[in-house]
Amino acid sequence: MLPTELAARYRAYIACLNAQHLQALGDFVADDVEYNGQPVGLHGYRAMLENDYRVIPDLAFNIALLVAEPPTVASRLAFHCSPNGEFLGLRTQGKTLSFSENVFYEFQHGKIARVWSVIDKAAVQAQLG
Amino acid sequence: MLPTELAARYRAYIACLNAQHLQALGDFVADDVEYNGQPVGLHGYRAMLENDYRVIPDLAFNIALLVAEPPTVASRLAFHCSPNGEFLGLRTQGKTLSFSENVFYEFQHGKIARVWSVIDKAAVQAQLG
Repeated sequence: MLPTELAARYRAYIACLNAQHLQALGDFVADDVEYNGQPVGLHGYRAMLENDYRVIPDLAFNIALLVAEPPTVASRLAFHCSPNGEFLGLRTQGKTLSFSENVFYEFQHGKIARVWSVIDKAAVQAQLG
Repeated sequence: MLPTELAARYRAYIACLNAQHLQALGDFVADDVEYNGQPVGLHGYRAMLENDYRVIPDLAFNIALLVAEPPTVASRLAFHCSPNGEFLGLRTQGKTLSFSENVFYEFQHGKIARVWSVIDKAAVQAQLG
């Protein structure tokens, strides 16, 4: 797959997340996907997203930076959203927050097989005061 | 610059950091470098590294993942080190910690001009208990 093709594939995955069209998640994510070293599988990955949608009603994934070198994609995602209740182990109480996630994905056979994500918890903590 | 050339340039930058050869930092980092949206400049960037070396005597930068698509490099850096005193606003007291940094760099004229870094503070907090 060319870098441009891989980038397009990744953008389609993000569009799927923003549409909350989780029936199609298996088109983009492998059955045995690993997240930060944990073998969560497609089922666990979907459950993680469902929880995100529940905790963050206005969740939107915005690609700020995208680097593709097959089989790897690196993306900086920008969030501007209002988590309810507990988020990253912090009490957010509906406050609107701006923060980033820098995340790497390894694709296999056109699907995300491994994810290494770091969310900017320090930025969230600073905004919560 | 080709992706392979940009990746080699980045590896040389990391070798410079690991050698603590800060006299050569200006070969890799632009005078007007921005770090996480702040115009720190080469002087501020060097001061940041000098502070890191002081707080973390066994600091070593290990490239776990590297994606290069000119002009951008994305890198996942793995750290296994023992910060003294305060690190990321946390009291670490010399405990050996393993954590990652997912970081993007924009190169201009062969030098790092903009950096967007997220360090896994949540992992550090979890290890400090």
